[in-house]
Parts: sequence; C-alpha cells; structure tokens
Amino acid sequence: MTVLTAPGFSGAAPTLPSVAARLACRAGNAEQTAGLAPGYVQGNLAILPENLAASFHRFCQQNPKPCPIIGMSEVGDPKIPSLGLDLDIRTDLPRYRVWRDGEMVDEPTDIMAHWREDLVAFVIGCSFSFEEALMADELPIRHIEQGVRVPMYRTNIACAPAGPFAGPMVVSMRPLKPKDAIRAVQITSRFPSVHGAPVHLGLPQSIGIKDIAKPDYGDPVQIKDDEIPVFWACGVTPQAVIAAARVPFAITHSPGLMLVTDLKNKQLAVL
Amino acid sequence: MTVLTAPGFSGAAPTLPSVAARLACRAGNAEQTAGLAPGYVQGNLAILPENLAASFHRFCQQNPKPCPIIGMSEVGDPKIPSLGLDLDIRTDLPRYRVWRDGEMVDEPTDIMAHWREDLVAFVIGCSFSFEEALMADELPIRHIEQGVRVPMYRTNIACAPAGPFAGPMVVSMRPLKPKDAIRAVQITSRFPSVHGAPVHLGLPQSIGIKDIAKPDYGDPVQIKDDEIPVFWACGVTPQAVIAAARVPFAITHSPGLMLVTDLKNKQLAVL
Repeated sequence: MTVLTAPGFSGAAPTLPSVAARLACRAGNAEQTAGLAPGYVQGNLAILPENLAASFHRFCQQNPKPCPIIGMSEVGDPKIPSLGLDLDIRTDLPRYRVWRDGEMVDEPTDIMAHWREDLVAFVIGCSFSFEEALMADELPIRHIEQGVRVPMYRTNIACAPAGPFAGPMVVSMRPLKPKDAIRAVQITSRFPSVHGAPVHLGLPQSIGIKDIAKPDYGDPVQIKDDEIPVFWACGVTPQAVIAAARVPFAITHSPGLMLVTDLKNKQLAVL
Repeated sequence: MTVLTAPGFSGAAPTLPSVAARLACRAGNAEQTAGLAPGYVQGNLAILPENLAASFHRFCQQNPKPCPIIGMSEVGDPKIPSLGLDLDIRTDLPRYRVWRDGEMVDEPTDIMAHWREDLVAFVIGCSFSFEEALMADELPIRHIEQGVRVPMYRTNIACAPAGPFAGPMVVSMRPLKPKDAIRAVQITSRFPSVHGAPVHLGLPQSIGIKDIAKPDYGDPVQIKDDEIPVFWACGVTPQAVIAAARVPFAITHSPGLMLVTDLKNKQLAVL
C-alpha cells in the first residue's frame, strides 16, 4: 500500500479544490467527477466486510497493476485521514452501488444506512492521474477528444487469485502513434500507484481481445492507421472480481463517480 | 557529451578485462569485439579533420539518439583518458576504415600511417551496452539467438543536419513480445548515452520501412506471430552520414570491430 500524507484541512485555511469538490459530492451536486479538482487524485472504492477484506487485500497485493491501493480504512472507521482529514467514505462519493450476493441492490447517494462496524474501505488508484500526466506531455487521449468513456476489455490475463477473488484482468485502451506509445510507457512508469506502465500494446488478440471495436465496458474509439492500441491495467478489474465472487455484501462507487482525495497526482510520481 | 571517468590503469594492479581486450585488439588478435570484456562499454569510432569536426560534433549534439558521444579526443591527440588511461585510438581497434571523398581506400589494423595533427576522434555509444541490460532482464535478443548481425534499416526520419552532415536515421530492430517491448522501453530509457529508449515500435511502414524482411544493413531475423518489431536509433547513422557527405578524409571503425573502453555499462545507467 502506498502511504502518502495529504495536506491538512483546516476551516481557517483556504479551502482546497479537492475539499470543495468533495463537499459538492457530499451535497449530491456532482453528475460525474472527471474534471473536478484538476491535479488531485481520484480513486475507485471497494468496501467489504472484515471477513472478506483480508482476502481482497491479498488480491490487491498480488495484482498491484489493476488494483493499486492508495488508501484504506481501519475496520468500521469511515475516515481515511491520509486521503483527506475531513473525508467520510460514507458520504463523500456522489453515488454508490450496494451489492448482495453478486447483485446490485441499491444505488444510493450516501451509505449511512448501509454502514456497519465490520466494514473496511479500500481506495484504489485510477487512470485519471496518469491521463493528466500524458496530457501534460501533450499526448492525445482519444476518448477524451471524442467525449466518450474509455474503452475497456476483459483479457485472457489471469489475475493471481486470493480467497474468493479471482478472474481476468480488465484493461483500458488508448490508441497512440508508436513514438507517443513509447513516451507513454516512460511517463506512466513513473506512476506505479495508478496502474503504472501499460501491460500490452499492439496485437489485441495476444491478450484475448477478439474485436477491438467492441469493448466489454465503456465506448469504442477510433484507432487511426498510424496508431497502435496501448493497454493499461484497469480499476474495473477489482469491481468485476467482486461481482464475480458473488460475495454476500459489498459496496463500490458508481462508474464515473469517484472519490476525490487531497493527494496531488504529482505526489504519486516515483521519479 | 557524457563525461564519465574510467577506473585508472596501473601496471601494478590486476589488468582490467577491458584493458586485456584492448591489448589483444592492439596486437591484432580479435576477429570481432562482440563478447569481449563483458560488462564494459564498447564504442563506434569516427575520426575527422578539425575543419569538419565542429560540424560533426554539432550533428551529434543535435541527434543524440543515433549519435550519443561517450568520449572525444583533443585535436591531434590520440589519447582519450576518460575511456582508458592507456588507450591509443590509433592502434586499439582491431580494424579501421579509411575514407577519402566518400570512398573507402584502406582497411588497416592500425592508423599510425594515417594519423595527422589535425584529427579529432569521436567515440559513439553502441547497442551492445543496452543489449547486455536487456539480456540481464532475460529478454530474448533474436539476432544473438540466431547468431547473425542485428537487422538495420534506413528510415524516413530525417536527422537534423549540420554543415555537410545530413541524412536519414538508421535504426536497428529487435522483435519482442508486447510485454517485453514495454519492459525494453523502461530498461533502455535508463541508458540515454547508448541510444536510449526505442524510437519506434510496430508499424514499420510508418517510418518508411517497406519490407521488414530486407534490412538495409545486417541480416534479417525471424519475427514471430506474437511479437512486434521494436526499433532503436543506430550508431550506423553517423557512419552513413559521413559516407554520404563524401568528405575529403575520415576514419571509422570496421563493422563489428569496436573500441573496448574501461567504462562499465552499468555506469551509463541514469537510474
């Protein structure tokens, strides 16, 4: 687990953009979190009962590329001070998904009614952070240009299993010119806690993708003649694994509605 | 120019493997330098009269990926102490090529008879160094497996010209599985003074390569169905540029017969 300390939050100091974004999410005023609080890390959420949390933690430990943990709570504690002093995991995402036995049973804007003393929250790094670094280097991000969701694919790359958690790695795809793909490997290698370097490029069929035009999640994007598809491990992997495990109880974020933290993306760079 | 200091050479100390290799070359006992003194940097050689050396130096400065200078001499001085205290550039390569007006006129085992007070020697990093790092990471190098020369191609990537020196970048190609190609980008990015990260991967036609099975220099190698071609800037570029410039006088190394230096490959790693 990456241990990072966020700047402190104090009522007397100017409000951080991330805190303002989180307060807006808490108040139910966010339709999506993409674009909120630029420069700040957003994360995927997975909440599990303590009796499953150890297995899930081990799953993440063994599969750090799709499941990089950037913060987690104590058992039963809805706070994660390392990601924001005021942060309350029960209220600070715009929308949640509540799962029972592998079925989504509720999609509430807070989980006060679902919180239990045995729950553990995991916050997992997301590609927004490395996309910001790619764009800062003026690399084009096709799905952002086209205004659609990133295309994602189930692969034939098996995650290392842990307890009930097992399944294939899900990857996101961004088409790039070869020289930009090389640059993207360099840039994203600096960000191991938000999926890091690509896991694959070119040759979609080598990782079990039969039709690049038909993603399993998200939307298809154009791949130009002078571009190759570049694949990164994706934070949808743990969500798919939790759903496939049909565990008695779990809570996740609703797609596109992430947790905004007080960590800055640049803090995640290892170099 | 990368400034590095080689370990000192003293008659009293145990002889470095690089010094032993250089003495063997000096005595004319080396048929090739590949495999000599493992761990030590080998370099391409280009020697030009002072009135052309400034332009050539500027060419290298502007094209650091194909022409990374790892050492150069003072005008008229055959020593390059930073690469080896005892090193004599006139005798320490197994074989040289002497060029007049763009034609090779001699291929001697030393250049004592050709040395002049106005000559400047440039030693340029070579791919042996990064191939050693790739193999240390257990990545396969196809031309080494097949026992042939690395395939090299003229591209449509124009070098930045300087004085009479101009022309396309020449690249070397190594086929790799996509995940190994990503790893190779990371590894070779650590070695900017020996060509650094690849300049291209996949899509040979994008850089003007019409038939990957017909290299312009070296030998063809097998590319398996699950591999992509990965292209690095190549030290043949400055040699091709010197030949194309048809300069009145130049000396280079003979292909495959490089200068063995006292620098260690691991010293060249920036991380």
